Amino acid sequence: MDGSSSQMRDCIEACLSCYRTCLGMASSHCLEVGGRHVEPEHFRLMLACAEACRASAQLMLIGSPVHRHQCRACAEICAACARSCDEIGDMEACVAACRTCETACRAMAA
Amino acid sequence: MDGSSSQMRDCIEACLSCYRTCLGMASSHCLEVGGRHVEPEHFRLMLACAEACRASAQLMLIGSPVHRHQCRACAEICAACARSCDEIGDMEACVAACRTCETACRAMAA
Amino acid sequence: MDGSSSQMRDCIEACLSCYRTCLGMASSHCLEVGGRHVEPEHFRLMLACAEACRASAQLMLIGSPVHRHQCRACAEICAACARSCDEIGDMEACVAACRTCETACRAMAA
Amino acid sequence: MDGSSSQMRDCIEACLSCYRTCLGMASSHCLEVGGRHVEPEHFRLMLACAEACRASAQLMLIGSPVHRHQCRACAEICAACARSCDEIGDMEACVAACRTCETACRAMAA
Repeated sequence: MDGSSSQMRDCIEACLSCYRTCLGMASSHCLEVGGRHVEPEHFRLMLACAEACRASAQLMLIGSPVHRHQCRACAEICAACARSCDEIGDMEACVAACRTCETACRAMAA
Repeated sequence: MDGSSSQMRDCIEACLSCYRTCLGMASSHCLEVGGRHVEPEHFRLMLACAEACRASAQLMLIGSPVHRHQCRACAEICAACARSCDEIGDMEACVAACRTCETACRAMAA
Repeated sequence: MDGSSSQMRDCIEACLSCYRTCLGMASSHCLEVGGRHVEPEHFRLMLACAEACRASAQLMLIGSPVHRHQCRACAEICAACARSCDEIGDMEACVAACRTCETACRAMAA
Repeated sequence: MDGSSSQMRDCIEACLSCYRTCLGMASSHCLEVGGRHVEPEHFRLMLACAEACRASAQLMLIGSPVHRHQCRACAEICAACARSCDEIGDMEACVAACRTCETACRAMAA
């Protein structure tokens, strides 16, 4: 359907999954729990990570080879978000989604 | 994870699936086949439908009750895209994704 | 450039301006001040409004007539966001941007 | 409003301007003129550039320092889009917007 390799389809899947997890957790768990979960630096990183993942999926669906630049950026941002979620604690789903997406994006960027 | 009902999760899934199908088919199948597939009115509708679905998913993930306004708009746009894809022909995956998303969004908008 | 009327260009401008104001204020002012500014219902509405405005601008730039459905949804969401920001207080820039965008979107939806 | 430096505000402006120009020209001029303007590689690059610019603006508005990764990707994609538009010809507005955005994003990425 999207004319892409199975590696790219897996990366689109990982990006959309990380996007859903980061945006969903920021807007439900983090806003409801409050405290360190709405600490500006952490919360902004979650929103930024959701957007970077969403843009990476979009560029792979569009199918231009420039997606590799976007995937490289996305991998860096996912790595930073995984670290921040790990430090905050009680964010395991987010850490896992970010790490899976980081790995998939690094492979696409290579 | 996103604090939502199973009906909302299904609608998020239908929106992201329709987004992927419309954007992926426009950018691969339609641009490659050309002819009536890049006729401006049809092609714009595919891009518009992809974006409306993407925005609906985003608003449901954010979890504000205003998502129902977005879902209502999305249902109308999916219906128009399904009709256009049906007329053009050879776009079955897109017609099916748009109709599934239309139904899910109408239920969320009610 | 975008083949659109001056009324549509004004509406694209109003949507992008409201998008910038809502997302920028949520992520700077609201997260920094905290308290009622990160109350989940209010904060989600600001993020939702930013996304609805962004999607409306996108559909007008794409130039499909289905943008009117998106603009109708955007007007409703901007109206709700203006009310919420007005109640919270100290959000004048947001109230003004939402009301301007609501008016422009209602005209495009008609 | 968005708590950012004047350099960042200029970059947000350049990104949103490039986004509007690329998406607007792809969807009006390119689809209407057809021929080499809807050649898949070129058209996909225009859509990809619009999305990368849009995501860069979003990350700067969110205000997380990870925006620099996104701005670096955006600069590369803008450079590729400017070259493609220059080769196709009759796309001066797009070439100019891409080059301005590339320069602003490189500075933010540094």
